[in-house]
Parts: sequence; C-alpha cells; structure tokens
Amino acid sequence: MKEELIIIGGGIAGVSCALYAKRAGLQPVIFEKSALGGQLNYINYVDNYPGVKLGTRGGEFLNILGSSLKELDIKVIEEEVTKVTQKEERINVYVNKGEYEAFSLVIATGASFRRLEVEGEEEFIGRGVSWCAVCDGYFFKGKEVVVVGGGNIAVEDALYLSSICKKIYLIHRRDKLRALDYLQKEVFKKENIKILWNSTVKKIRGKDFVEEVVIENNKENKIDTLKVNAVFIAIGITPNTQIYRGLIDMNEEGFIITDENMATSSPYIYACGDCRRRPLRQLITAAGEGAIAALSVYRQLKGSYVSY
Amino acid sequence: MKEELIIIGGGIAGVSCALYAKRAGLQPVIFEKSALGGQLNYINYVDNYPGVKLGTRGGEFLNILGSSLKELDIKVIEEEVTKVTQKEERINVYVNKGEYEAFSLVIATGASFRRLEVEGEEEFIGRGVSWCAVCDGYFFKGKEVVVVGGGNIAVEDALYLSSICKKIYLIHRRDKLRALDYLQKEVFKKENIKILWNSTVKKIRGKDFVEEVVIENNKENKIDTLKVNAVFIAIGITPNTQIYRGLIDMNEEGFIITDENMATSSPYIYACGDCRRRPLRQLITAAGEGAIAALSVYRQLKGSYVSY
Repeated sequence: MKEELIIIGGGIAGVSCALYAKRAGLQPVIFEKSALGGQLNYINYVDNYPGVKLGTRGGEFLNILGSSLKELDIKVIEEEVTKVTQKEERINVYVNKGEYEAFSLVIATGASFRRLEVEGEEEFIGRGVSWCAVCDGYFFKGKEVVVVGGGNIAVEDALYLSSICKKIYLIHRRDKLRALDYLQKEVFKKENIKILWNSTVKKIRGKDFVEEVVIENNKENKIDTLKVNAVFIAIGITPNTQIYRGLIDMNEEGFIITDENMATSSPYIYACGDCRRRPLRQLITAAGEGAIAALSVYRQLKGSYVSY
Repeated sequence: MKEELIIIGGGIAGVSCALYAKRAGLQPVIFEKSALGGQLNYINYVDNYPGVKLGTRGGEFLNILGSSLKELDIKVIEEEVTKVTQKEERINVYVNKGEYEAFSLVIATGASFRRLEVEGEEEFIGRGVSWCAVCDGYFFKGKEVVVVGGGNIAVEDALYLSSICKKIYLIHRRDKLRALDYLQKEVFKKENIKILWNSTVKKIRGKDFVEEVVIENNKENKIDTLKVNAVFIAIGITPNTQIYRGLIDMNEEGFIITDENMATSSPYIYACGDCRRRPLRQLITAAGEGAIAALSVYRQLKGSYVSY
C-alpha cells in the first residue's frame, strides 16, 4: 500500500502537519522513533505559546497534542526511519525492519542540542537547565544566570538575557569568543554580563531547581561556585538531517532549505520545524510551519488550493 | 514619550507579537480600535490550533490571550489609528485625538471578508456561516454545504471541501466562473460539487445552527431552498492596509510584502498576520509570525539576536 503522506518526526511541527493534513481530507502517517512530542518532553512550562495559559505544564500540552491525534484517528508508527530514497514519483521510506512507499513526505525531524555531559545537566532539564533563551529566559526575570558557549548563539543568548536577568555569567572555555565581531562589541558593553574566560562547567547543583554551578578555570586550575538559577547551554545545535544528505538541498550546517510553502528542492518532499533553516526556533513557529506544509502537500496531491 | 514598539491590531498576530516582545524585555503597546481578538470574536470553536484542545470555545481562547497580556502587564490602547508617517528614524502614529511616536512599528491589522448582507448571515456566524474553509470545513465532515462565489478562493474552497463534505453547492451569480482555468477544470470533475449558476443567496435560516439557505436564480426568477449545514462565503477579502499606502510596499490587492523576518520595505516597520501576503491564513500561522516580528524588532533595536 502506498501512503498518501508520511511525516517523519512527532514533535510539534510533525503533529501540527498531521492535524492539518487530516482535516484537509488526507491520510497522514507519523513516524516517531522515540516519544511523541520531541523537545516538548524536556519542557517544564509552555509560557511562549500564545493562546495557551501561562504556566501550562509541558506534559499537559503534550497530552493535548496526543489526544488531538487520537480524536482525528491519525496513525503513529513507532519506528526509526533509517533511509529515504526518491526515484521519479516514487518515495521510499526505510525503517529497521521494512519499507514504506509514499506519494509525499514531510521531514520534521527537529534538531539536537549539544550537551555539556556533566553531573546535574539531565536532572535539571526544565528546572533551570535550558537550551533556549527565548523560550525560557523570562522565567528568570531579575535573577542571575549562566550562559555556556562562545559562538554566535551563546553571545546572542547572553545579550537577549541581559535585558531580562539581573546578571549573566558567560562561561567560555577559550580566551576569546568565536562570535561575530559586532556581537562581541555589544556583549563587552553590557555591564550585567560578566565573561569567565578559560572556564568550563563541571557540575550543576540544586534541590528542586538549579541553585549553583561549579566552574573550573583551566588556566589557573581554580574551582569556583556561582549561585545562579539557570544554565543556558549554547555550545552547538545539529539538525537531525544526516540521512537526507543528497536527497534535498541543505545549508552548510545541515539545515534543510525550503521556500515559504515549506517545499524543499525535491518535488513532493517538504520540511518544517527545527530541521529547517528559518529565522526563529519556537514551538509556535514550528506549529505554523507544520500547517503550511500540510496544505502544500494537499495542494500538490489534489492539484488545487493555491495561496491567497 | 517615545514608545519602544507600537503594534497596530489586537488580533492573534498582534497579541503574539506583544507577548514575545515583552518577554524579550521590550515595552510594546497595542492599539486596537474595537474588541481585542479580531476575527477570534467570530469563531465558535478553535479546532485548528495544535496544542489547544479540540472543541475549545473561541471565547475561551480569547480570554487566555487577554489574561496573558494582563499577566505580562502589556498596555492596550483602545484607539483607532488613522494615519502613520515615517521620516528618517521618526515614526508617528495618529489616532482620532492625538499622536504617538515610536522607535518601531508592527502592523497587524488583519483583513476583512466581504459579507453577503443577507438575513441570517450575522446571526449564524460561528454556527454554520464561515469565511474560512480550512478553519471550519472539518466541522461539516459528511454533511452538505454551500460555497458562495466564483473566483479562485470560492473554487478552491469548494475543492478543499469536496474531500471532506458529502455534497457542495457552489453558488455563483454569473454564468461562468472567474477562477483560474485549471481550478475550473478540477471543479467540473468533482461529482460531489454542484454549481448553481446565475444564483444568489437570499436568506440563511435555522434554529441554533444553519439548516437551510434560500437561493434565487436570477435568470429564471426561481426561488429554491437547499437543506445544508454550512455556508462558506468567498466573495472577497480586503486587507486592512488602506492607510499604509505609500508608506510600505504592497501587492496589487493591498497585502503587505515582507521578507521571512516580517520586515517591510521600510526600516523599523514590520507586518504580520492576515494583512501580510503569505501562503496560509490561519490562527497558528499568524501567531508564529507575530513571534518572528517581535524578535526582528528586538534584533533591530538592540543590535543583536541574528537568526539561527
């Protein structure tokens, strides 16, 4: 049997795509290798999704997504996709034990944030440890926080947090930043950002929430403890697009390039969410992109519904 | 006093923009001429907003937006903006009695759908009368419905509904369609779409929900009654952008042209939501665009936070 639409990835982008596709009369199938929800599984509170009550638990939000899928009778297959091929109008999706064929494909596989791999990191996810300053910064209004990293994202996160938080410690393992020059200039100007050079995070500690971070200065072999409420980790992000290399166009970092309709460089293949090159990585933007991808598939398969 | 950010329009796009701007440490002000929520005031159920429970009342959704604004202490000014001027770095916003100055502006004024102006139209808004097939089509799965109009949107709506509804009557006042040729071909092929030529809707009737529509055939001077559950009106949409002509670039129909960061052709002026040219007109896409506009403003005013 040839599937009408296969969606790879069951995060907010993939789920949104499935809901819109089903409501449009298509029969979408989601492939998700682990737990439905993707990064939502690491979010404590969803405070940045307009229309959802501030203070809503990540788990509660995730349950609503799950119920919506069930109510609309959308199939979720718990399999890891290992390979995708396209030959003329034929798209094949391979999993560990078997293969599927589809008329159209939406890639919504998200991205992975590099971890520090230190004690306390996993334990305090959603309770002070975060990979997203725009998502979680406001929870730490007026507090002291740590940002880890020295590239563009780390410096931008520090700058972003500087107008919300009382004090930001930017922890960088080298003696100079890798970020763009104008960003460096901005960060040096901020009185509430303190850069700790040649330093790495060794431990994250607390009771229910992050309370302190143990820092090692590699040059002076000195250990210090900072009393902070949050640790924003910005040491790298990798789109989960390795297996699609050669199939569709990507930028240097591996983010999939699409147009505003979420169409990739290959016909019948679309991409949405964190795996896609885009200006803002948020739940709400991923959800919108999933909806657009669904309608684009609909339009291509059914030969109608142009933009308006 | 010069405002940091003025947002014109308190629909989902404007509210989302305000929430994101405030969380980023900016001080946004919303101008709304009538009720907060824009088109949300005409929506009965929000079933197409991933993460919000299916069957959530439009009013309930609207209340959550209102509470979020209050919790984040965002100012809403109930005034109609009558004119906006920009001269170098100076943006002036005029209301009926007074004027404001701003460093940056987000236009989120939405669009207006043309009305039939017949008995029952206002009464059954959200209870069978709709201007959005993608939003509301699924509520009428397996039912018989009417689409009014003869242009691209009407024909696309009829096609969209043809895979969801049992039967679609396409009511058009002339003896040929205005829609693009390929769309016409598609619509003629569908067995469950019946076109009623030279016809206009005279009345929409029902008890709690739409039950029937009175149709007049203008050529044969004949009156007919159709038993249907919904009336989708697609006779025109006008972006609420008249007062911005000359200030920023628009397309022929008056939709504002932006890039993917929601930037218009003028510096410090952004646009999001239904007033903007875009592929899909939905609550969820408007919310995402509001968030992007907020971060773009932030980046421009604060000199940082580049895309990643």
